[in-house]
Amino acid sequence: MKAGIIGATGYAGGELVRILLQHPEAEIKWYGSRSYIDQKYASVYGNMFELVEDVCRGDDLAALAKEVDVIFTATPQGFLSGVLTEEILSGTKVVDLSADYRIKDVATYEKWYGITHQSPQLIKEAVYGLCEINREDVKKARLVANPGCYTTCSILTAYPLVKEGLIDTDTLIIDAKSGTSGAGRGAKVNNLYCEVNENIKAYGVATHRHTPEIEEQLGYAAGKEVVLNFTPHLVPMNRGILVTEYAKLNKKADGTLPSYEEIKAVYDTYYKEEKFVRVLEKDVCPETKWVEGSNYVDVNFKIDERTGRIIMMGALDNMVKGAAGQAVQNMNLLFGLKEDTGLNLVPMFP
Amino acid sequence: MKAGIIGATGYAGGELVRILLQHPEAEIKWYGSRSYIDQKYASVYGNMFELVEDVCRGDDLAALAKEVDVIFTATPQGFLSGVLTEEILSGTKVVDLSADYRIKDVATYEKWYGITHQSPQLIKEAVYGLCEINREDVKKARLVANPGCYTTCSILTAYPLVKEGLIDTDTLIIDAKSGTSGAGRGAKVNNLYCEVNENIKAYGVATHRHTPEIEEQLGYAAGKEVVLNFTPHLVPMNRGILVTEYAKLNKKADGTLPSYEEIKAVYDTYYKEEKFVRVLEKDVCPETKWVEGSNYVDVNFKIDERTGRIIMMGALDNMVKGAAGQAVQNMNLLFGLKEDTGLNLVPMFP
Amino acid sequence: MKAGIIGATGYAGGELVRILLQHPEAEIKWYGSRSYIDQKYASVYGNMFELVEDVCRGDDLAALAKEVDVIFTATPQGFLSGVLTEEILSGTKVVDLSADYRIKDVATYEKWYGITHQSPQLIKEAVYGLCEINREDVKKARLVANPGCYTTCSILTAYPLVKEGLIDTDTLIIDAKSGTSGAGRGAKVNNLYCEVNENIKAYGVATHRHTPEIEEQLGYAAGKEVVLNFTPHLVPMNRGILVTEYAKLNKKADGTLPSYEEIKAVYDTYYKEEKFVRVLEKDVCPETKWVEGSNYVDVNFKIDERTGRIIMMGALDNMVKGAAGQAVQNMNLLFGLKEDTGLNLVPMFP
Amino acid sequence: MKAGIIGATGYAGGELVRILLQHPEAEIKWYGSRSYIDQKYASVYGNMFELVEDVCRGDDLAALAKEVDVIFTATPQGFLSGVLTEEILSGTKVVDLSADYRIKDVATYEKWYGITHQSPQLIKEAVYGLCEINREDVKKARLVANPGCYTTCSILTAYPLVKEGLIDTDTLIIDAKSGTSGAGRGAKVNNLYCEVNENIKAYGVATHRHTPEIEEQLGYAAGKEVVLNFTPHLVPMNRGILVTEYAKLNKKADGTLPSYEEIKAVYDTYYKEEKFVRVLEKDVCPETKWVEGSNYVDVNFKIDERTGRIIMMGALDNMVKGAAGQAVQNMNLLFGLKEDTGLNLVPMFP
Repeated sequence: MKAGIIGATGYAGGELVRILLQHPEAEIKWYGSRSYIDQKYASVYGNMFELVEDVCRGDDLAALAKEVDVIFTATPQGFLSGVLTEEILSGTKVVDLSADYRIKDVATYEKWYGITHQSPQLIKEAVYGLCEINREDVKKARLVANPGCYTTCSILTAYPLVKEGLIDTDTLIIDAKSGTSGAGRGAKVNNLYCEVNENIKAYGVATHRHTPEIEEQLGYAAGKEVVLNFTPHLVPMNRGILVTEYAKLNKKADGTLPSYEEIKAVYDTYYKEEKFVRVLEKDVCPETKWVEGSNYVDVNFKIDERTGRIIMMGALDNMVKGAAGQAVQNMNLLFGLKEDTGLNLVPMFP
Repeated sequence: MKAGIIGATGYAGGELVRILLQHPEAEIKWYGSRSYIDQKYASVYGNMFELVEDVCRGDDLAALAKEVDVIFTATPQGFLSGVLTEEILSGTKVVDLSADYRIKDVATYEKWYGITHQSPQLIKEAVYGLCEINREDVKKARLVANPGCYTTCSILTAYPLVKEGLIDTDTLIIDAKSGTSGAGRGAKVNNLYCEVNENIKAYGVATHRHTPEIEEQLGYAAGKEVVLNFTPHLVPMNRGILVTEYAKLNKKADGTLPSYEEIKAVYDTYYKEEKFVRVLEKDVCPETKWVEGSNYVDVNFKIDERTGRIIMMGALDNMVKGAAGQAVQNMNLLFGLKEDTGLNLVPMFP
Repeated sequence: MKAGIIGATGYAGGELVRILLQHPEAEIKWYGSRSYIDQKYASVYGNMFELVEDVCRGDDLAALAKEVDVIFTATPQGFLSGVLTEEILSGTKVVDLSADYRIKDVATYEKWYGITHQSPQLIKEAVYGLCEINREDVKKARLVANPGCYTTCSILTAYPLVKEGLIDTDTLIIDAKSGTSGAGRGAKVNNLYCEVNENIKAYGVATHRHTPEIEEQLGYAAGKEVVLNFTPHLVPMNRGILVTEYAKLNKKADGTLPSYEEIKAVYDTYYKEEKFVRVLEKDVCPETKWVEGSNYVDVNFKIDERTGRIIMMGALDNMVKGAAGQAVQNMNLLFGLKEDTGLNLVPMFP
Repeated sequence: MKAGIIGATGYAGGELVRILLQHPEAEIKWYGSRSYIDQKYASVYGNMFELVEDVCRGDDLAALAKEVDVIFTATPQGFLSGVLTEEILSGTKVVDLSADYRIKDVATYEKWYGITHQSPQLIKEAVYGLCEINREDVKKARLVANPGCYTTCSILTAYPLVKEGLIDTDTLIIDAKSGTSGAGRGAKVNNLYCEVNENIKAYGVATHRHTPEIEEQLGYAAGKEVVLNFTPHLVPMNRGILVTEYAKLNKKADGTLPSYEEIKAVYDTYYKEEKFVRVLEKDVCPETKWVEGSNYVDVNFKIDERTGRIIMMGALDNMVKGAAGQAVQNMNLLFGLKEDTGLNLVPMFP
């Protein structure tokens, strides 16, 4: 399978390269990077020295489409929607790591992103590529909207309980913490080592763009509109997202709260057969380090009898399951490969 | 003023030394440390080389009381309550950095800490040393229960709104993040560099001991029982606590939410004259790095019209305002000094 | 191939598990850990949840030898030499990650390690498993002494120039910097997060145990005794070793220094065919991050005309090429597998 | 004393503000920052909220000179030499934190910095502000060239032995390690969190600009030309410089090496009365963390009988003794204040 990447020199693009190089069925034919065009890819990412001999190429999607079977776009918001055409899609599969086709309602997209969508006619056919939920639709897709890092973690952590109506989604609050690679490789003062190190802060409070994406997907699960609080924080580490989610448990018919065993059984029903979702043992809290470098999402929960709330927790590597790993998982589905092909990455510790 | 420290070689004890050495009215006469008895204090903390020539002494509180005007106990839970007597208190002031006298209800203390309290008769007179709230009582006290690090941050961040009845305390959720110095200097695998670095996790979910302390104090402010969720997280940094607190805003008589300006005015009423509480400018999120090494608490908030919630944020240095700095602030009050004496520490960046 | 690990819950043991799980020809049959005996391995290393179902077993080498084809010992100094026997070696291959069989001269070993060697009769047959240098001997061995992390990096960085007589080994100085995983997983105050973070220091100055190992191996290359300075430093990061080595360049017959091109040609002669040694391009300094998670050693050099010295630099991942990766490379050689089997690990960035 | 700062929003400038705010005799009248002109200083450095109310002003040195007693320039190389005049110096003292007046030989400056010096006539009168060595000259100066961070540490660590002729300066090698604040606050990809974190590398090998500055000053001490190797490394931490220096010890008349006690006595002779230089106890290696936030330099040494070399080590906080602290120490000398005024900063740990 021949693959091309637009945005190969960003962090997510670099991670795609790392994973695809270890993928037995894929070969990268196009390392697209407008900023580093004609430079050796390995001169941008020294870890790829002697592993990648190619030089960077541009972002001509139409030209790229003629050379490859699948295109990954790890590009700024608005890029793909400005250049994607029916013609490209008719010959090539596209997995988009940007947000351009994630949100079905154009107005919502345009409001939260502040961008006019250039190809709204393609939104409808795009499949939201959260494999554990939309697996069958992905298999038939031409255009996959690869989910956001925060959203993948936020949704999978709460999904079974939302789907089964076990929590009151009006009370759902998501407090998320992310490593700094999520901020990208742009040269900004805010992302300098000395500004991030030994520091933690919230950002995008009540305004972060992943909010409507989480709300839309959990809304499908709930069968009704979901409006929630989502607060991301920047953590001094390279990789990893942890979400801590709070919601009121719905009481059972007899007025009592569900037990640990009852909730655990629900999670197991949804995730027992899911290789990349690990429901941890009782009282074990997910740690981002335990999933580093891998495609796993670790989830668990704790019931607080005192407040009647459940605290749900989830952890993933934002570069893998939160971006490039999930993109490759989607690629495997698109081409009928075993879903975990090239993704049997054992988490690295320490 | 002559001061003695029991537990001088823990991190909080070390910070007391750092601050008292720069205090114009205090002199440390006793560096208590059972583990390092008879060893030079500066051989335990190399930063104190040539600054402290003393050797460590034991934890004989009665003997210490005869030598000093004020005793700081930075000791494990249960130590002070086991040795404190009326006789000691009749001659010396005590500022206790442990939790022994923080909680008025003995049963609550014993339940959350799993310890039988040895001197419950002294709990009543102990003053909870959150200076901004209990200033006048501290001035008259003999025994000050210095608040916990998480609690100081959690309480001060929400206090004005709770006190004024602006939020529904039944919906209050506190998601807290702490640097690793809060875990102390004990040699445990969990606190090794390689276990903490590049990692974030929750711990003590629904069971952390600071929960009842926060609930008690906010209960006084609310004038009714408060039960809430408090979830601490371990962050890969040395110092700093950040809290992110969520609650439903109570609607005004006309059914609308309070405005930014209205909420801001409430915070200003409480904190404008408080030197160590800084209410940030609109839309600026507190960062732990901005208070590092200082006695400041930075607070701010954001109203989310979509959900009707307010997100309150607070940051402090857990070693200073969260422990040793506040202890010295209490000492200043106890002895009639200017409250900020020795505490004009400018935060260090980066 | 059936493999057993003694010391599977140390950091090097954990890395062996990570690598062997991804090795197509190996299967781990024995997770030895005296400290965690009968506990689930995945309860010690959460990253292995659902990947390893085994419980930890003890350190009975003789019993283990009957179950497996190869034994890895990632144990404290003195353990293996105390229990290894001819009988065990007659049926099983052993790759020892400790120092017990690295040094040919027993007196030197006993002096630097302060341990009496219990099986000196086996030292002679042990092969020093620096694959790039002793490949052919390893293939025929029963007992491989896997090199130390600092030594692997130090030796490979200087080897071609020492072997070719291009530097004056009497002037050789090695200044080394290591991540903290090299200090192991023992619960010591010195290795706590707050002690290591935001800190750098030298340790073991003029006395570090890797010194005689480096001297012995470079002595073989030089054809004469080598005595040098080796100074390790502890760096606040999990993984990675960087060495900076200084030596006087021997002048050529015409009294001039060798040129960049001449030195580069020597490095290329030795390493062009070596997959795991990458000689970087001119003026590119090795970075530990570029080799993280992989079995690569990156080397380069700079000639300083002003002082007549050459500065040689090398970087590797101390857990991989510095320990477990090299051990697996040795296993591959021992069993006639392709040398890079299971070691095509692409470095992870960031 | 009225002070002005040009370059107040760089890291060194920010540290000057931190220290001067705690200085009993100084008042900052001018926060110069071309990039942030007319913006509130505290909006650039949130730690200064409520501590500094001023807005940033420009870099008009002549205008500034009329308002203050002393000017600190924490500016890029070439700035001050382009605008400094006799007229300014006749009314105001200047402490320059850039390199413009550090090197007496213009050609050397121009070669290593690649800049044409615009006011070479002022170089002669500039005093190299390494207070421990040039104290008396600083007191009489108008223009002080504040030493570089690496150079301060490198020189003070070796100075007594060079001055007393105890080491062979032809063999002197300095391997230096620095935290990332030394790289400044410029928005560069190389200094992003994810590029620096979990990484160590050398840079500027054989070409770093601090080399000639160290050589010049040690040359004065040696009474002859000194040419040496200086290799800086970038370490994942905010603050701190550690130097490890290697040299052959000169043998005594009887052919033996000097003893530990003899070398120690020399260090003590030079530094016993120096408040800001701490010669550590035997076998204690300096750690950057032990001096963080303070004006101390910690030095120590180890003799290696095997190689005949001495390993000298030194640690300082690059922002304090390596920049702003030393600048204030110079200011104190210039104005006849007690040299440690405002500099009794206790190192912060952890």
